Amino acid sequence: MVTLLDVARRARVSSATVSRVLNGAGRISESTRRRVIEVATHLGYQPNQVAKSLRLGRGRSVALLIGDIEQGTYMALTKRVQMALQALDLDLLLFNLDHREDRLFGFLDRAPTMGLLGVVMAVPRRMDGRRLARHAEQLRAQGMLLVAVGQRLNRLGVPSIVHDEVAGAELAIDRLVAGGHWPLAYLGRTLTSATGGARYRGFRAALAARGADAAACELWECTDKYRAEAGYHVVGEALRRGTHVRGVVAMSDEMALGGIAAALDQGLAVPRDIAFVGYGALDWGGYARPALTSVLVNADAVAEAVEELFRAHREAQEPRTLTIVQPALVARASA
Amino acid sequence: MVTLLDVARRARVSSATVSRVLNGAGRISESTRRRVIEVATHLGYQPNQVAKSLRLGRGRSVALLIGDIEQGTYMALTKRVQMALQALDLDLLLFNLDHREDRLFGFLDRAPTMGLLGVVMAVPRRMDGRRLARHAEQLRAQGMLLVAVGQRLNRLGVPSIVHDEVAGAELAIDRLVAGGHWPLAYLGRTLTSATGGARYRGFRAALAARGADAAACELWECTDKYRAEAGYHVVGEALRRGTHVRGVVAMSDEMALGGIAAALDQGLAVPRDIAFVGYGALDWGGYARPALTSVLVNADAVAEAVEELFRAHREAQEPRTLTIVQPALVARASA
Repeated sequence: MVTLLDVARRARVSSATVSRVLNGAGRISESTRRRVIEVATHLGYQPNQVAKSLRLGRGRSVALLIGDIEQGTYMALTKRVQMALQALDLDLLLFNLDHREDRLFGFLDRAPTMGLLGVVMAVPRRMDGRRLARHAEQLRAQGMLLVAVGQRLNRLGVPSIVHDEVAGAELAIDRLVAGGHWPLAYLGRTLTSATGGARYRGFRAALAARGADAAACELWECTDKYRAEAGYHVVGEALRRGTHVRGVVAMSDEMALGGIAAALDQGLAVPRDIAFVGYGALDWGGYARPALTSVLVNADAVAEAVEELFRAHREAQEPRTLTIVQPALVARASA
Repeated sequence: MVTLLDVARRARVSSATVSRVLNGAGRISESTRRRVIEVATHLGYQPNQVAKSLRLGRGRSVALLIGDIEQGTYMALTKRVQMALQALDLDLLLFNLDHREDRLFGFLDRAPTMGLLGVVMAVPRRMDGRRLARHAEQLRAQGMLLVAVGQRLNRLGVPSIVHDEVAGAELAIDRLVAGGHWPLAYLGRTLTSATGGARYRGFRAALAARGADAAACELWECTDKYRAEAGYHVVGEALRRGTHVRGVVAMSDEMALGGIAAALDQGLAVPRDIAFVGYGALDWGGYARPALTSVLVNADAVAEAVEELFRAHREAQEPRTLTIVQPALVARASA
C-alpha cells in the first residue's frame, strides 16, 4: 500500500506538505500543490480519509437529517450547517426524510456502522421517544454526537438547539395587534409536527402573557397537505366557512404565502381585511406582493451552535444540552 | 478487531443476516434486528463501511456540489438526487459552493483523497476548462465518476446532464407571443453563469427558429445581485429607463418573482402591461399572485439520469456522455 511518506519522497516535499495539500489546509504554492496531487495520483495513493477513519475509529462526516429540504428554512439551515462543519474540516452527509419516521429510524439503525462523527436531526415530526432514546444511547456509546435542531430532545440525552417559540409568537402577535388585526388564528401543523406543536404552544403562551382573550382565537390545523398548498387550502376553507379572524400567524413563509393567495382569490385585501405573519423570513418573501412580514429563524445562530457542539465533542468536553436561539421580526407589508 | 462473524456468532444469526441488518437491506424481524444491533454495539463492532471502503478502494458516498442551495431548483435537485443515490445504497455528501470557483477547485483537489465513489457537479458558473479537464482525468484514473448537471462538459470527458434550453425557450416565447406580449427581454446572468449563458443562447436560437425579430428583443443582464433581488433590481431599472419590452423570460422563478414585484411596484399590471415566464416551476410559484407561469425543470429526470450513470459505473460500463432532459410549460397567470 502506498503511504503518505511514499508520496512525499517522490514529490520531494515533507510529509506535512503532502498532508496539507491533500487536506486543502494551509498555504501551498500552486506548483507544489500540483506536483503533490500528480504524484499521489500517479502512485495510486489511496484515501487517507478512509485510513484516518479507521485509525480514529470514526470518520470526518456528519449526517444531517432533514424533514423536507424543499421547505425554505431547511434549505437555509442546510447551507449554513454545511459551512459551519466545513470550518471544522468536517463533511456533511445529507438525508432527506420526507417527513417519514421509518426513514428516520432506518437511518439511525445504520448510523453506528457508517463511520460517522455525528448526526444532526433537523426533523420536525413527533417521534417515538423511547426508540429514539435507545438510539441516542447507542450512538453515544460509540462516541458519536447526536444533535437535535428544532425539537427539545434534551430530556432524551440529545443536545438540542431550539427556537424561542414564545418570543417568536410574541413578535408576531404584537405586530398583528398593533395593526388592529384581531382575533387571530394559528395556521400550521400541530398534531404530527413537534416543531409545529411547540410553535402553537408558544402562540398560546404569548397570548396568555399579553392577557389576550385566547378563546377568541382559532387553530387552523393543516393535515394532509404541505407548504403553500396547505396554507392555501386551510385558509380558503376557513374563509369560505366564514370567520372573525383578522390576523394569521403562519408556521412557515410557504404557508403564509398560500394563505395570502387564498384571501386574495376570495377578493379580500391583505393586510386590510386579513393580515399574515410568516415564519422563516425567507429571501423570496420580500418579493411576494404584499411582501411577507415574518419571524426570522436565525439559521446562522443555529449553525454556530452546531459548530460549537462538534468543537466541544472533538475536545471531549460535555456538550451544552440546550441552546435557545432568539428570533427577530422582519416587518414588511403583509401585517 | 471485532468482525462481522463475531457479531453473527454472539447474536446466533448468520453473517448474511448481520450484514443485511447493518446495511438496512432486506426484510428482518424487529427482534432479530434489535438483537444484532445490540450485540454489534456491545462488542464495539466498528464501521463496516470504512472497512468496505478500504477493501474496495473507495467509499459509498457521492459528493454533490451545488452552486447555491438557496436557489429553489438546486434544492429540488438535491432532494431527488439524494433519493436516487439511496436507491443504489449510496450516500450523498453535500457541498454548497456559493458560486465560488476557488471552493470548487479546492474541493476537486481534495476529492481523490476522500474515498468517494463519484462527484456530481451542479454548478452553473463558468469554469477554467483546462483545469477542470485535469481534475476529470485524475478522478477517472482513480475509478471515480464525475458528472456535470446543467452544463455541457462532455467535451472535457465529463458525462453531462443538461436541459434542452432551446425547447425551454420556445415554450416560454410561444406562450408570451400567443398572449400578445412583444417584444421580449431575457432576464438572467449570462456572463458568469454557463447555465445562464446556455439558456440565453437557447432564447436567441428559439427566436431565430420562430423567425422573430430578435433585434427588437433585449438582454437584461444580472450582475452583482442574486435570485429575486437581482430580478427586482434589473427589471426596476429597465422600467425606469423606459422600455418597449412587454414580455420577460426569466432565468429562474426567483428572478421572475423579483421582476414582477418591480413591475407591480411601479404601478404596472402583470401580465397585462408586462408578462413574465419563470424557470423551475417551483412549488411556491403557484401561490404568488399573479401565479408564476414557468418552464418546468424536470428534476426527476435529472435524478434518474444520475442514478443511471452510477449504475453503469458500478457495472463498469461506459457512461452515457450526454443526456438532454426535456422541459414542459406550467401555464399559470403571469404570462
